[in-house]
Amino acid sequence: MENKNYPANRLDLSFYREELPRGNRVALAQAITLAESTRSEDVASANQLIEQLLPHTGNSVRIGITGVPGVGKSTFIEALGKYLTSLNYKIAVLAIDPSSTKTKGSILGDKTRMEELARDKHAFIRPTATGNALGGVTDKTREAILLCEAAGYNVILIETVGVGQSETAVRNLSDFFLLLMLAGAGDELQGIKKGIMEMADAVVITKADGDNLKRANQAKADIQHALHIFSDSDSGWKPKVITSSASEKKGIQETWNLVQEYVRFAREKNFFDELRIRQNLIWFQERMQQLIKQQITESPELNEQIKILEKKIIDRKILPARAAQEIISNYFKI
Amino acid sequence: MENKNYPANRLDLSFYREELPRGNRVALAQAITLAESTRSEDVASANQLIEQLLPHTGNSVRIGITGVPGVGKSTFIEALGKYLTSLNYKIAVLAIDPSSTKTKGSILGDKTRMEELARDKHAFIRPTATGNALGGVTDKTREAILLCEAAGYNVILIETVGVGQSETAVRNLSDFFLLLMLAGAGDELQGIKKGIMEMADAVVITKADGDNLKRANQAKADIQHALHIFSDSDSGWKPKVITSSASEKKGIQETWNLVQEYVRFAREKNFFDELRIRQNLIWFQERMQQLIKQQITESPELNEQIKILEKKIIDRKILPARAAQEIISNYFKI
Repeated sequence: MENKNYPANRLDLSFYREELPRGNRVALAQAITLAESTRSEDVASANQLIEQLLPHTGNSVRIGITGVPGVGKSTFIEALGKYLTSLNYKIAVLAIDPSSTKTKGSILGDKTRMEELARDKHAFIRPTATGNALGGVTDKTREAILLCEAAGYNVILIETVGVGQSETAVRNLSDFFLLLMLAGAGDELQGIKKGIMEMADAVVITKADGDNLKRANQAKADIQHALHIFSDSDSGWKPKVITSSASEKKGIQETWNLVQEYVRFAREKNFFDELRIRQNLIWFQERMQQLIKQQITESPELNEQIKILEKKIIDRKILPARAAQEIISNYFKI
Repeated sequence: MENKNYPANRLDLSFYREELPRGNRVALAQAITLAESTRSEDVASANQLIEQLLPHTGNSVRIGITGVPGVGKSTFIEALGKYLTSLNYKIAVLAIDPSSTKTKGSILGDKTRMEELARDKHAFIRPTATGNALGGVTDKTREAILLCEAAGYNVILIETVGVGQSETAVRNLSDFFLLLMLAGAGDELQGIKKGIMEMADAVVITKADGDNLKRANQAKADIQHALHIFSDSDSGWKPKVITSSASEKKGIQETWNLVQEYVRFAREKNFFDELRIRQNLIWFQERMQQLIKQQITESPELNEQIKILEKKIIDRKILPARAAQEIISNYFKI
């Protein structure tokens, strides 16, 4: 990774520590890059920095947004983002695309996708790296959220496409989880999204305009009905359905009002902070797992041993369970 | 765990090593209990035993069977089991019920569920313990399969209810994966099973008799059509759909013929052994993860440290990522 934009000594954290709370966007972008680095010194520095910035973090609403390709996520996020900056909010968009490691396409396209928002000086758009298979799709998104908050962004939109485990991962770092759906996309689509729907605090039906309006209203009733089937969420919040048309700027204000209603509701029940604490404990557990995997990957000796045992397993000369026991007893004695 | 049925010295493995290949059912049941023990000496003994028995293992077809409660799994398995023993196969039924740790009910009910089969001396029915949260739902099922094979059972039916990750886990230890479905259970049910359907080598539509017959045939056509949507499986096998009526003994022979057709197909392509090797490598990886978790759980000092760090995380005094780093650097140095 090139670091020509870093301060003379990239590990001199005082630059970031001073510039981030001033809202310096270049410093923010560089700090995220530091956190996303695969070099362990960089990661240690980033962790130290974020810990020092902790008093400046937390003052945002973190909104997870998901939906299948074609549902109109960019258009919706751009409309919501523009609306929020018009209310003087500072918004950050963190886009997670698990497929991006293969195609690279959508990451490069991120800023052009939301052209108007990208020019807005109160908006910060950043695709987050998902290349590290060890860490999962949201590897360093939590760090990015905290850094954005330290830089004064008070609404964080975390966007993901509906692939694999990414929705659950994003749910685990959002205060509010929003599912975008198309009206009349058929039972099949809705079926695929069923596990996801259970995690949603709200469903927004997009493209509810023109010929689509009637179908969208029908879908709203159907989905509202379906949501009743699920047992209550931990907070007691009842998920709501909204119809939206980004082209007609419809449902945008309503979505934001709903988010605010949720935040009031969750704060009253002490659930807002409780959920963040739970998410931090999950973060701790996940990162431990990840660091263990990383140690295995980075140890040539251990890798060599694993290869030898795998060969024996293939040749049916050792029981896989005993091979595992051998590795752990020899290398992971606490 | 009481061990009054063990030989005088429970770690004297020669008893099992001699008795299992003779088909001694009591020795088999005890050996599985030994493998399922949570005492590490027992596990080490069981692993040693199974490794010594490896030459006697592998000569079976391992059939994973899943389906929602009410689909008629027990009835189907009993009918299939009786049919197979009538052909002089020795069959073992390993029932995995992830909910059993809570209710205990279905495990106790296993033998009464399949009363006729339970009396058949060529059938061995065993619920497998799923109590160990560390190991997941199929914690020791692999060991049980190998022990059954060593005792001469040549068709192993591994049954699971459709809860959580259990299907994927069972898929990872089966040669052939069978999904039972009800006709006309509505799109909702079919939607829930979509991820599962992609893993199936065959779908059996149960209760295809009487008034239900027409609907079952329609469902067969629909599901066959749906299966075409999925991309080819690794083996190139095209999943088939069968209608079945356990009461009319319909579809049982057909199911077995299909399993045999699959085995021929997979052997011809060298896929049969290749899949088992892959599954053994997964077993190795999973068991390593599990042993690491176990080490953490069993170390009082480490647990104490984790508790202290969790308290700091809750009080926002440490970054979760840094807390994880601290644990791993101090306790998991390779």
